[in-house]
Amino acid sequence: MQAAVVLISGGLDSATTMALARQAGFDCYALSVDYGQRHRIELQSAARVATMLGAREHKVVKLDLAAFGGSALTDRSIAVPTSPSSGIPSTYVPARNTIMLSLALAWAEVLHSTDIFIGANAIDYSGYPDCRPEFLHAFEAMANLATKTGVEGTRLRIHAPLVHMTKAEIILQGAAAGVDFSQTVSCYQPTSDGLACGQCDSCRIRRKGFEDAGLADPTAYV
Amino acid sequence: MQAAVVLISGGLDSATTMALARQAGFDCYALSVDYGQRHRIELQSAARVATMLGAREHKVVKLDLAAFGGSALTDRSIAVPTSPSSGIPSTYVPARNTIMLSLALAWAEVLHSTDIFIGANAIDYSGYPDCRPEFLHAFEAMANLATKTGVEGTRLRIHAPLVHMTKAEIILQGAAAGVDFSQTVSCYQPTSDGLACGQCDSCRIRRKGFEDAGLADPTAYV
Repeated sequence: MQAAVVLISGGLDSATTMALARQAGFDCYALSVDYGQRHRIELQSAARVATMLGAREHKVVKLDLAAFGGSALTDRSIAVPTSPSSGIPSTYVPARNTIMLSLALAWAEVLHSTDIFIGANAIDYSGYPDCRPEFLHAFEAMANLATKTGVEGTRLRIHAPLVHMTKAEIILQGAAAGVDFSQTVSCYQPTSDGLACGQCDSCRIRRKGFEDAGLADPTAYV
Repeated sequence: MQAAVVLISGGLDSATTMALARQAGFDCYALSVDYGQRHRIELQSAARVATMLGAREHKVVKLDLAAFGGSALTDRSIAVPTSPSSGIPSTYVPARNTIMLSLALAWAEVLHSTDIFIGANAIDYSGYPDCRPEFLHAFEAMANLATKTGVEGTRLRIHAPLVHMTKAEIILQGAAAGVDFSQTVSCYQPTSDGLACGQCDSCRIRRKGFEDAGLADPTAYV
């Protein structure tokens, strides 16, 4: 089996991504980043997802992005918005996907893996620039120049199987691939018991996804 | 004055890069990464360089790249080579410059800065893929798609002023720009007192640079 590095956050999208990577026959090395996110319970959820979906290994790398600030997800003095905003919302974490893909690239190179999976989505999403296909293509081009693997002529691929799916499609594909969504957490500000607020961008998009998919929403809301 | 994020390692190249950024009129925010490098004394040197060259701020971000392994610089079970090798040497740290530039990108975005400086060099270097101009151009293209800044139409630039210089040219330019090289450490395996081994790739390239430049080498060797 070919090894792949799969970025998992504990949310619905990355769990579905990992299930699809497994279905495609990859041996999955799951990577999560403890970046000082206020929704820290997602790291517990990531560990459950890794086990549930049969990851070969799950690494959690600590990196204090709160040192830079500038996001409602890492700076507790910025409130998480509870109604839709125009433009890029304050939950955007500067360069987050670039950093996470870079870390995945480092691990992939050590594993001699040429495949990295990320659950980025550019349909039912919050408008973050680093979720768009053009960003992902540019990252792939850069990665092939950055590494020994690329220099030696092996082509490295960034897989984003959800990028063009609606949230409902993601939920249907994930369910079909065996994801138990009750084990995932999407909320940006869950309670310490893991209850979702139901009001943040991420909760609203998730809730509507289950409605559109016609599936019961297993999320425990406050 | 325009703000710039400058990656500094404590070595000769990044010190010269910061001096050139200052000369070009930038207000410098120095960034170092504590990535588990065996030559940890370089972080003390980075702090001295930041002060010496008038950085507005110096941040050290902790990130355990040793968790991935795969390099003589982070894995003490791999010896640092003391003679030239063909191909990419074992001191190569997988995806290191990609990761460091990604972190610089995050900070630049929070600072509303559009300029990042890195001391990468592709002439007198160890053959690392992520020091080549084609990599740096691809990173810049990716960065402009990754961030709010890029989406809003402001062009972000990766500056690598040393990329086409010989080591002797770097030393001459750095000296002219006021760098005191006795404050910098290039060795991959210095003693705890900061004495350089004189034998690793980095020491050999540095020593020859001072010879070619016709300047006295202020490095303290064992």
